[in-house]
Amino acid sequence: MAGQPRLKRPDPGAVESALAELRQRFGERCTTSSAVRERHGSDESWHPPSLPDAVVFAESVAEVQAVVGICAAHRVPLVPYGTGTSLEGHVAALAGGISLDLSRMNRVLAVRAEDLDCTVEPGVTRKQLNAHLRDTGLFFPLDPGADASLGGMAATRASGTNAVRYGTMRDVVLSLGVVLADGRFIRTGRRARKSAAGYDLTRLFVGSEGTLGIIGELTLRLFGIPERIAAAVLPFATMEGAVRTVIEALQMQIPLARIELLDEVQMAACNRHSALGLAEVPTLFVEFHGSPAAVEEQIAQLRDLAAANGCSGFAFARDEEERNRLWRARHEAYYAALALRPGAKGWPTDVCVPISRLAECILETKRDLVRSNLLAPLVGHVGDGNFHLVFLVDPNDAEEMARASAANDRLVARALEMDGTCSGEHGVGYGKAAFLALEHGEAVDVMRAIKRALDPLGLLNPGKILPG
Amino acid sequence: MAGQPRLKRPDPGAVESALAELRQRFGERCTTSSAVRERHGSDESWHPPSLPDAVVFAESVAEVQAVVGICAAHRVPLVPYGTGTSLEGHVAALAGGISLDLSRMNRVLAVRAEDLDCTVEPGVTRKQLNAHLRDTGLFFPLDPGADASLGGMAATRASGTNAVRYGTMRDVVLSLGVVLADGRFIRTGRRARKSAAGYDLTRLFVGSEGTLGIIGELTLRLFGIPERIAAAVLPFATMEGAVRTVIEALQMQIPLARIELLDEVQMAACNRHSALGLAEVPTLFVEFHGSPAAVEEQIAQLRDLAAANGCSGFAFARDEEERNRLWRARHEAYYAALALRPGAKGWPTDVCVPISRLAECILETKRDLVRSNLLAPLVGHVGDGNFHLVFLVDPNDAEEMARASAANDRLVARALEMDGTCSGEHGVGYGKAAFLALEHGEAVDVMRAIKRALDPLGLLNPGKILPG
Repeated sequence: MAGQPRLKRPDPGAVESALAELRQRFGERCTTSSAVRERHGSDESWHPPSLPDAVVFAESVAEVQAVVGICAAHRVPLVPYGTGTSLEGHVAALAGGISLDLSRMNRVLAVRAEDLDCTVEPGVTRKQLNAHLRDTGLFFPLDPGADASLGGMAATRASGTNAVRYGTMRDVVLSLGVVLADGRFIRTGRRARKSAAGYDLTRLFVGSEGTLGIIGELTLRLFGIPERIAAAVLPFATMEGAVRTVIEALQMQIPLARIELLDEVQMAACNRHSALGLAEVPTLFVEFHGSPAAVEEQIAQLRDLAAANGCSGFAFARDEEERNRLWRARHEAYYAALALRPGAKGWPTDVCVPISRLAECILETKRDLVRSNLLAPLVGHVGDGNFHLVFLVDPNDAEEMARASAANDRLVARALEMDGTCSGEHGVGYGKAAFLALEHGEAVDVMRAIKRALDPLGLLNPGKILPG
Repeated sequence: MAGQPRLKRPDPGAVESALAELRQRFGERCTTSSAVRERHGSDESWHPPSLPDAVVFAESVAEVQAVVGICAAHRVPLVPYGTGTSLEGHVAALAGGISLDLSRMNRVLAVRAEDLDCTVEPGVTRKQLNAHLRDTGLFFPLDPGADASLGGMAATRASGTNAVRYGTMRDVVLSLGVVLADGRFIRTGRRARKSAAGYDLTRLFVGSEGTLGIIGELTLRLFGIPERIAAAVLPFATMEGAVRTVIEALQMQIPLARIELLDEVQMAACNRHSALGLAEVPTLFVEFHGSPAAVEEQIAQLRDLAAANGCSGFAFARDEEERNRLWRARHEAYYAALALRPGAKGWPTDVCVPISRLAECILETKRDLVRSNLLAPLVGHVGDGNFHLVFLVDPNDAEEMARASAANDRLVARALEMDGTCSGEHGVGYGKAAFLALEHGEAVDVMRAIKRALDPLGLLNPGKILPG
């Protein structure tokens, strides 16, 4: 099991000196309240909390720079915090220090409809941004489920249900404003749609989980709201049939906006939690975006492919209410899964493989779960080859936790053996740091060299991504 | 003018020692022939050649590792070379040393149709790859004009006419095999479509122009050949009308595959060079990809937008022959431009701006050209906000070169002032290195820190991207 690493804590005197300076500058916005520290040391997963010494609420880039400067001067670690919805222990203060809460930096700084882009502070959440965009005809599509902060989504390279059409945070971040470990503020790029001018710092900071710098500003791509949106539910006789349908749709370049796979266990959970009344078999939830004619064509094409692959029905959710009910059920899949075993904690994990191996990877994994006597519903962003399990476990049952951990290790090994990755979208945090070398080999040394170059004191979110 | 920087050359004895080892290992594949050196020190632009001491033709990753190792041992610089079609002096051996020719590493290692990807050696050219794919129903869309090597395209973050639909090399490279400055070979990623596992080394090496490592292998995304392809030519009364049409098409999310803008000067050049017989006014060349119904719908939508913006006709090239003639004319725009002034050299430059500023940027630039008494036809990948000029100059006329250089400086300043970039797709080389700090400010220090971390001896393509 990926136990919580024990990192060297800063000198208590250094923490006290830093706190004195922070209190002077931030007043009540620097707090050592245990309830606040508890919340900031925890994420939404089973990972046990690891508390910072204090929490500081920043309200501007200048304040972020001040906190970074004070922490650097006293050699005190710093963990950036958005909404705390990450899943691999990203916000755990493994070496204590300061949790830097960015949620009050939540202004939308600019929306430029002609350029289909906007600039926001890091604490703006995706739902807040879409509410702000309501009258523009534009939207920000990325949807990882949780109403995460956009800074956090960039830091973890989040994606979600419609990455197959709109890309991941890697693709939709045009540029970032970043506070470096030495307190300087840089911008990683301009608003031009493409550039060949220098190293791609934007993509370097996207997914760096606060270990290379603190994201203080984001410029993001926006998209026009499609003229027509339709959704459908496709139950399949077999998992292979469902995956085969998706492979063929991708090869035909049918521009599906969402293609989600739920296994029979997850369907049962969703039926119970959201009263869907759907068949408890491997099922695709699909969404179509486009002009009315384009959507009709996509539906006809997909229906043909699905029928040839053992789809036993094709139920539409054409109106917005029915569609929202369906996607709400999909988004509540995690809570539906938890409800399958009251009192259990969820241990979410995700891997991503080349799509040709997806059915095989899923089926082997499900056999493994049966053999391991583990309950773990499965959902997948199948268009990307990405799927999730939620192990339903009792963290106080050491034997069960060890079984889940071993199954998770085998899941990752299986994905890597298929040329996949140990995390498609949840990120590394410390929960998956042990797999990094397995996946990247000596490329991890390059990552370490970059970390040393940009954070020589090792104060930015220590213990994350790169194991200590 | 961005003069050729004078870099410190290695000790001649060191070069001799390295050459002795290289000759022993590579025999006749290590050459000091002046014709070969001349070719390898030159690109396709006006930049004067800068010759390496020798050229080595590598045939495998192991051989690239050997060359890197020998160069490192003797502190001799190394410049990777693909097809020599770059435009900003990328292959100039500014500090002498070895030009490492990768063109013989031209095997397609794997095509995986189900996963829509392939793995190739760096010397495979884009046309060679598409010829190889001929019977698969797949294609590699990126098209920078020249039949460049895919390794070189990745190294310069190339894009071209259909980036608006299919992305740039940033988007289509799934992973790279890279020989590091210390001779180790790493892979930057797996074949999964997305990953949140660690720093994005793939995107770091894409666009690094051989300054951080030598690309020895590429895994690339492929796309299904569209069922229907159509092209059209749209002449406009004004530049603003042409650009406005494109902005509106992007906002409506019409998935155009190519949207190229040619100004009246370039149209005259193409008419003369390729006998097109088209009106000499600002003109869009557009290509549509999709199902027959989708293509018809796109055409109808674009036709409406264009008519409302002063398009005086809408000529189709529906059959393949006519379409190819059109795109050949577009691809030969550079040679057509050169033919406008026989004996002149072409000085190509490109910038990219947010599309809302594109018309303004182009019109100001054209007024500047008139004031500066310079002939420089203009073409643009207008869907990306990217446009090119080719200054037609006599490199022996110092006064004219100074005028062109000053106009280029103003072009870059204008693009930067509009939140654009000094190069949308040609890259930096040494021709645009002087603009890097202007564009990126202190972010250049982050780039320098990464360069030092990954190439501490400074032997990989010295003098490129980061000015000395």
